[in-house]
Amino acid sequence: MLDTLDLKLKLDKKDYEKMKTERMGKLGLLQRAVREAGIPVVIIFEGWNSSGKGVIINSLVQAMDPRGFKVHTAYHPNEEERGKPFFWQFWTKLPEKGQISIFDRGWYFQTVHREVMQQANALESAIAYSDINAFERLLTDGNHVIIKFFTHISAKEHKKRIKELEKNYGKDWRPTEEDWREIDIYQPLLKIYEEMFSKTDTAYAPWVAVEAHDTKYAQIKVLDYVINILNKKLEEVAAGRKTTVDKNKDSAIESAFYSSVLSKVDLSQIVSKKEYTEKLEKYQIRLQELQFKLFRGKVPMIIVFEGWDAAGKGGTIKRVTGNMDPRGYYVTSTAAPGFIDKGYHYLWRFWKEMPSQGMVAIFDRSWYGRVLVERVEGFATEEEWRRSYREINEMEEQLINSGSLLLKFWLQIDKDEQLKRFEDRQSDPAKNWKITEEDWRNREKWDAYELAVNEMLFRTSTVKAPWTIVESNCKPFGRLKTIKTIINAIETRFGL
Amino acid sequence: MLDTLDLKLKLDKKDYEKMKTERMGKLGLLQRAVREAGIPVVIIFEGWNSSGKGVIINSLVQAMDPRGFKVHTAYHPNEEERGKPFFWQFWTKLPEKGQISIFDRGWYFQTVHREVMQQANALESAIAYSDINAFERLLTDGNHVIIKFFTHISAKEHKKRIKELEKNYGKDWRPTEEDWREIDIYQPLLKIYEEMFSKTDTAYAPWVAVEAHDTKYAQIKVLDYVINILNKKLEEVAAGRKTTVDKNKDSAIESAFYSSVLSKVDLSQIVSKKEYTEKLEKYQIRLQELQFKLFRGKVPMIIVFEGWDAAGKGGTIKRVTGNMDPRGYYVTSTAAPGFIDKGYHYLWRFWKEMPSQGMVAIFDRSWYGRVLVERVEGFATEEEWRRSYREINEMEEQLINSGSLLLKFWLQIDKDEQLKRFEDRQSDPAKNWKITEEDWRNREKWDAYELAVNEMLFRTSTVKAPWTIVESNCKPFGRLKTIKTIINAIETRFGL
Repeated sequence: MLDTLDLKLKLDKKDYEKMKTERMGKLGLLQRAVREAGIPVVIIFEGWNSSGKGVIINSLVQAMDPRGFKVHTAYHPNEEERGKPFFWQFWTKLPEKGQISIFDRGWYFQTVHREVMQQANALESAIAYSDINAFERLLTDGNHVIIKFFTHISAKEHKKRIKELEKNYGKDWRPTEEDWREIDIYQPLLKIYEEMFSKTDTAYAPWVAVEAHDTKYAQIKVLDYVINILNKKLEEVAAGRKTTVDKNKDSAIESAFYSSVLSKVDLSQIVSKKEYTEKLEKYQIRLQELQFKLFRGKVPMIIVFEGWDAAGKGGTIKRVTGNMDPRGYYVTSTAAPGFIDKGYHYLWRFWKEMPSQGMVAIFDRSWYGRVLVERVEGFATEEEWRRSYREINEMEEQLINSGSLLLKFWLQIDKDEQLKRFEDRQSDPAKNWKITEEDWRNREKWDAYELAVNEMLFRTSTVKAPWTIVESNCKPFGRLKTIKTIINAIETRFGL
Repeated sequence: MLDTLDLKLKLDKKDYEKMKTERMGKLGLLQRAVREAGIPVVIIFEGWNSSGKGVIINSLVQAMDPRGFKVHTAYHPNEEERGKPFFWQFWTKLPEKGQISIFDRGWYFQTVHREVMQQANALESAIAYSDINAFERLLTDGNHVIIKFFTHISAKEHKKRIKELEKNYGKDWRPTEEDWREIDIYQPLLKIYEEMFSKTDTAYAPWVAVEAHDTKYAQIKVLDYVINILNKKLEEVAAGRKTTVDKNKDSAIESAFYSSVLSKVDLSQIVSKKEYTEKLEKYQIRLQELQFKLFRGKVPMIIVFEGWDAAGKGGTIKRVTGNMDPRGYYVTSTAAPGFIDKGYHYLWRFWKEMPSQGMVAIFDRSWYGRVLVERVEGFATEEEWRRSYREINEMEEQLINSGSLLLKFWLQIDKDEQLKRFEDRQSDPAKNWKITEEDWRNREKWDAYELAVNEMLFRTSTVKAPWTIVESNCKPFGRLKTIKTIINAIETRFGL
C-alpha cells in the first residue's frame, strides 16, 4: 500500500497557515463535544523515524484542552510493562470516556520490532496481528474511536534528514544509531509494514497513510482526518446508530488530501509504432508458451481489468489473448448484476467464474465494482462498501493461497484524454455503439470516481495482490506494459 | 467444549413424537416466511461418523417444502472441485435469497480432514480457520443466517454403533473402514475439534453442540434451535435492525435443551473429615513450594473463581492461600463496577489487575460477570454479552500466549444446598452479614442464571483455558479438588 503513495504532495506556507488556524479552531470545539458525548478516542501514530511524528502530534494537541488528552510514547515497554502480558501496557493507557489517548508508536511498532529483532516466525506474526485485530475490534465494539496513522517517507528522504540532524546538532544530540539501522533495513522493513497493513486494515480501524515529505501537508492531512472522523462519530452518537451512506459527507472525510495514488502516475509515457509492433509480436509468442506452462503446471490464473471508461480495456484484452489458446482462457465481462445474481451474495457471481487448474480467467471489470460504481452511485451502503475492502482482500488471499496467480490492472487515463476518445467514438460510425449516455453521466462524476479509485488502489494493494497501474494515455504503451507484467508474473512463478 | 456435555440426555418416545409433530408444523410455516422475507439460510452439520446426522437432517427436511431447500453432501470435494480454490465448492452451493442450503459436513470436515491426513502445520491450520471465519462473517454481514451443529457421541458409543451396523448389515453394506479409523484416532481428533471450536465459535456464527446418544433428543434439539433462530431473524428483518435484549425471547432460543453442562455434575461426592484434614495440610505445604517455583520461574498465574452465591468461594480462597507467601499473591474481589470503572471498557478493570511475572492473582468473581449477572439483569445488551464470549476467549488466549498460567473454577451446588446455607447464614449471628436481600433476589432467578452458566461453561471452555467444575455440596471435597487442580497445573507447567 505504501509504495502506491505520491510523496511529492506539498502545501505552500501561506495556504498551510490559513488551513491550520481554521482546523485548530474546529478541533478545539470538537474535543469539547467528544468529552460531552463520552466518547473515548485512541489515535496511534506509526511510521518511520524522522518522519515528523513529533511535529504532527504537536499540531494536534496545540488545539486541545490539555485536561482532555494524554500523549503516550510507547516505543519500548518499561521494566514493569515487560513483566506483564503484552497488551497490559496499552490497556492501562486507554482513554476514559470523553478522553483522547495519543500513542506515539505502540502495539504495531512493538510487534514489528519484535519480528525484525527476534526473527519471529510466520505463525507468531500471524497470531500477533490477529491479537491486534481482536484488541481493536473489542475497543470499537465498545464505542471507542480508533484512528491509525502511518507517516511515510522514502529511504532517500530518511537518510537526508538524519544527515542534516547530525550536521546541525552533532551525533550526541539524539541517538541516531537506531535511525541508521532503520535506513539499512528500509526495504525488508517496508515489506513487513506492507504485510502489517494487509493484516490489520479493517473496516472498524482502517489505516491512514500520511505522505510526510512535506510536514505542512502531513499536518493538515492528519488534522483533517481527525476532524472528519470525530464529526462522523458524533453524528452517529446523536443519531443513536451507525451513519448510513451520505455521499457528500463521505467525500468530506476523504477530502482532497486522499487523492494520492493516481496523482503520481506519469501519463506522458509513450512508445513508438515500430517498437510497439516488434515487441507486441515477441510478447504474444512468449505468452503463448507460458500459457502452456500454466496448463501443464496446473496453475489457475486470474487477470482483472479495471479502468476509466474508454481507457482501453477491450483493446488490451484483445492483445493479451491475441496468441493464446482459446481452450485455455475465458473472458468474463461484468455488467450490472442480473436478476439471478441479485439473489445471491455480491461475490457469488465472481466465485462461480474462478478458473480451474491450468485455466486463465480474464475479468473485464470485476468485484471491484463494489467499491467503484456501487459506492459512487449509492447502490451499496457505506457500511457495505467499506466492509468490502477487507472481504475482497480476504477472497484474493484465499485464491492465492490455494495456488492461483492473480494480477490486477488499473488502466489510467486523464480526463482530457477521455474526452478526446469519447468525441472520437461519437463521430466515428464504426465506434459509435461504444459510447452511451451513461458514459457521459459517469464522466460528470469523475471526481467522485477518482476518490473511490484512489481509496481502492490504496486499500487493496496488498503484498500478495498488488495493483499494476497502467499508464494508458498512449494505448500501445499500456498494452505492452500489461502483457509484459503478465509474462513476468508467470516467469517468476515458474522460476524462469 | 465437547467434553463438558452431558451425553445421557434423552427423551421418551411419547414425548418425542408429540414434540416432533408440533415442531414440524412450526418449521413448515417458518420456511414460507423465510422465503417471503428473502433470507438465505445455511445449516451445516458436522460431527462424528454414526452420530445420526442423516436421521436429524431427515427430520428437518420432512417438515419443509422441497422447492425451498437443498441438501449437499460435502465430505470430500469431487474432481472438478478439487481443481478449484477451496471455497469455490461452497460458494456454488450457497442458497439463493429465501432458500435453505443444508450441508452434511462441509468446510470444517474438509479442513480437519486435511489437518489429520496431511499433517498440516500450525500456521496452515491457523490460516484455514481464519479463512473460515472470514467466509462466515462475509455471509452473515450479507444477511445470511448460518447455523452450525456438531453432533457429538463418545468413543464408546461410536464403537458400539459400528459393531451393530456390521452385525446387522455385514461389512459390505457401507464402508466401515473410515469409521474404524475415526474410532482409532478419536482422542487426537477430539482435540482438533476442540481447537476448531475455539477458533470458529463466533458471535455471528456460534456453534451448537448436539448431544446425540439419544437421536430423539438430538432431533428435537436441532428442530428447536432452527425454529428459534429463524424466528429471531424474521423479527430482526421485520424490525429493520438487530434485535435488542429481551430476556424471555432469549430463554426461548436456548430452551431447556441447552442446559447440558451442569446436568451431569455429580454433587454427591464427599470426603471424610479425617481425609480432608490430612490432605489439606499436605496440599497446602506443596502449594507453598510451588508458589516459590512460580516466583523463581517468573510465571504469572491467574486463578478465577466463579460460582453460585454461598457456593463457598471465600472459604476456598482462604484454603488455597492458607500457606502461601502473601508477598506473592493478591485477591481481587469483583463487585459491581465502580464510578471509575464505568468510564472504561468492561475488561479494563481486570486487565489492570493482571499479575506480573511470578505473581499469583486470584479473582473472586471476574470478567465472567459480563455473561452472568450483566446478561441476566440486562445490564449488557444481548449483542454485547454475546460478543463477550469471543472477547473473553481472546483475552485469555493472549494471557496464556504471553506466558501466564490461567485456571478457572466454577463452584457448583444445587438449589437445595443453597437454601440450606442461606438459612444457616440468616440464623447464625456470626454469619448474618453474609446474606442480603440481593442474594434472595438472585436465587429467584436461578433458572435464568443456570442457562447463562451453562452457556458460559460451554462457550468459554477452550483447549487452552478449560473450566474446572468443582462439586461443592460437600465443601471439603470442593476445596481439596480445587487445590489439587492448582497443584497439578503448576507441576505440569514445570514438568514435575
